[in-house]
Amino acid sequence: MNDKKYAIGVDIGGTYTKFALVDEDGNISREQRIRTDSFATPEEFVNGLCLHLQSILDQHKARSPIRGIGIGAPSANYHTGVINGSANLPWRTFIPLRDMVAAQMVGMHTVVTNDAKAAALGEMQFGVAKGMKDFMVITLGTGIGSGIVSNGQIIYGHDGMAGEVGHIIAKPNGRPCGCGRKGCLETYASATGILVTAQKIMLANKLTPFETSQEITDAAMMGNPMAMEIFNQTGKVLGKILAHVHTVISPEAIIFFGGLANAREYLLVPTQKAFEEELLFVYKERKPQFLISALQHKNAAILGAAALVF
Amino acid sequence: MNDKKYAIGVDIGGTYTKFALVDEDGNISREQRIRTDSFATPEEFVNGLCLHLQSILDQHKARSPIRGIGIGAPSANYHTGVINGSANLPWRTFIPLRDMVAAQMVGMHTVVTNDAKAAALGEMQFGVAKGMKDFMVITLGTGIGSGIVSNGQIIYGHDGMAGEVGHIIAKPNGRPCGCGRKGCLETYASATGILVTAQKIMLANKLTPFETSQEITDAAMMGNPMAMEIFNQTGKVLGKILAHVHTVISPEAIIFFGGLANAREYLLVPTQKAFEEELLFVYKERKPQFLISALQHKNAAILGAAALVF
Repeated sequence: MNDKKYAIGVDIGGTYTKFALVDEDGNISREQRIRTDSFATPEEFVNGLCLHLQSILDQHKARSPIRGIGIGAPSANYHTGVINGSANLPWRTFIPLRDMVAAQMVGMHTVVTNDAKAAALGEMQFGVAKGMKDFMVITLGTGIGSGIVSNGQIIYGHDGMAGEVGHIIAKPNGRPCGCGRKGCLETYASATGILVTAQKIMLANKLTPFETSQEITDAAMMGNPMAMEIFNQTGKVLGKILAHVHTVISPEAIIFFGGLANAREYLLVPTQKAFEEELLFVYKERKPQFLISALQHKNAAILGAAALVF
Repeated sequence: MNDKKYAIGVDIGGTYTKFALVDEDGNISREQRIRTDSFATPEEFVNGLCLHLQSILDQHKARSPIRGIGIGAPSANYHTGVINGSANLPWRTFIPLRDMVAAQMVGMHTVVTNDAKAAALGEMQFGVAKGMKDFMVITLGTGIGSGIVSNGQIIYGHDGMAGEVGHIIAKPNGRPCGCGRKGCLETYASATGILVTAQKIMLANKLTPFETSQEITDAAMMGNPMAMEIFNQTGKVLGKILAHVHTVISPEAIIFFGGLANAREYLLVPTQKAFEEELLFVYKERKPQFLISALQHKNAAILGAAALVF
């Protein structure tokens, strides 16, 4: 018996759903995963997930009570607890996730948010944003997400959909985006977007294009000038848009997370350069820190989801 | 004797400084003003202001206590209480306004913020944003300011300087801005910016340009097609940038305030059209309301400053 606080963190991804018990210090135990895409319907998925969650609860019974279940999922809405047609899940339907889970896990406080906002909560509770009240996490994965914290609270917006920084238009009439518009930031600066840039540059130089963003990072580490140029062009677009977002919220730090953040200074140096060139003078005295997530290679999504509860 | 709460609201402008007693229902009494520009130094100005404030306090003595002094001033920083080189005041120096006032008004809680943030507080306490937790006030005056509220709190940012929406770059390499960069939103969509647009359109049509934004509004009301075109072009720029800001904070309402907001639907209709064309689909189901300030022709700045205290 101890008197630590506990929560269950659940990270729902397109392929795997991972979950674990998390204590208030960010220690993870009883980690498990199931294949999201092995379930034909959301109902079957929730049934399967809740069986596992119940078994964690049962095993933990003797210890201090679990405060609740926090769930991070693509396109999930904090206010409604609903996932409405995520492109990254096997089922493209309206899923009232929070209510479905709460109905089975009777008496458990259940909270849902999207993955980028969960990451921001995770950084604030367990990561590099400890003690910060105004910061932004940018997730550079297949798309670009953001979790923005102001006055110590996540900005959800009136409809729970704030923080779609990946869909700020970076280049009018630019690359086609999955959202139906053109030139969104994520068509340039996500792990997917940078590959398009890479392909253009490599083909123009009659070279075989890189196939993953990790390959570009590896090449940059070897001093490959083409890889450097790819990061320069990407950082230029990303830095400029981050300067615009900074003008709205003036955060203390911008924290980079996700696949493309593995490129570290290869991406961050040109991004910061473009950011500072675009920045309004009033912000130059107390410029934000550019940081890499402290949870980048940990179970950030599970930690962040659990932080929803704490 | 009554048990209402009271505060003193102070609105510091370049020409006049206005102040009054405000009760929690937004009733104003003992309104006075002094000429800001009649004082040679900030010290003399604060001495003069505090003499008047003290006399309001003395006269009010018999009634329920005054909770504090709220001050709205151009470029004022909420966190530090400092005005640092405002272009809109007679003295271009570093002015630790909050501390200077607090030193003379001993025992009075003194709070300072900039005019756009005071306007947002005023709308939330007394105006069209009553009951809203996520909204934005855009002030369209000589420049463009914004006061953004998220989770029921003003977004100040880590340095107190958030919300400089007027300095988001609307057109790369566009019109020169007072901030030293080019193409800022306020060079197009402020009361000053629209006159530049008007001049271009009128001269191209060999007509005498309008001299004030009110003249453009008056002409539009008479059905003048040139005036309509000026508002269309202005709304196009403003609407597009507001859609980008919406993507960050997803407010329930965007509230327009200040000189150019007097143009009402002549500006708002084309702005909303451009806004919706640029808006990400996820926001289209619960679009924000476009509203005109309820305090537009009242003492909004005094009310907003007093709301800082409540």
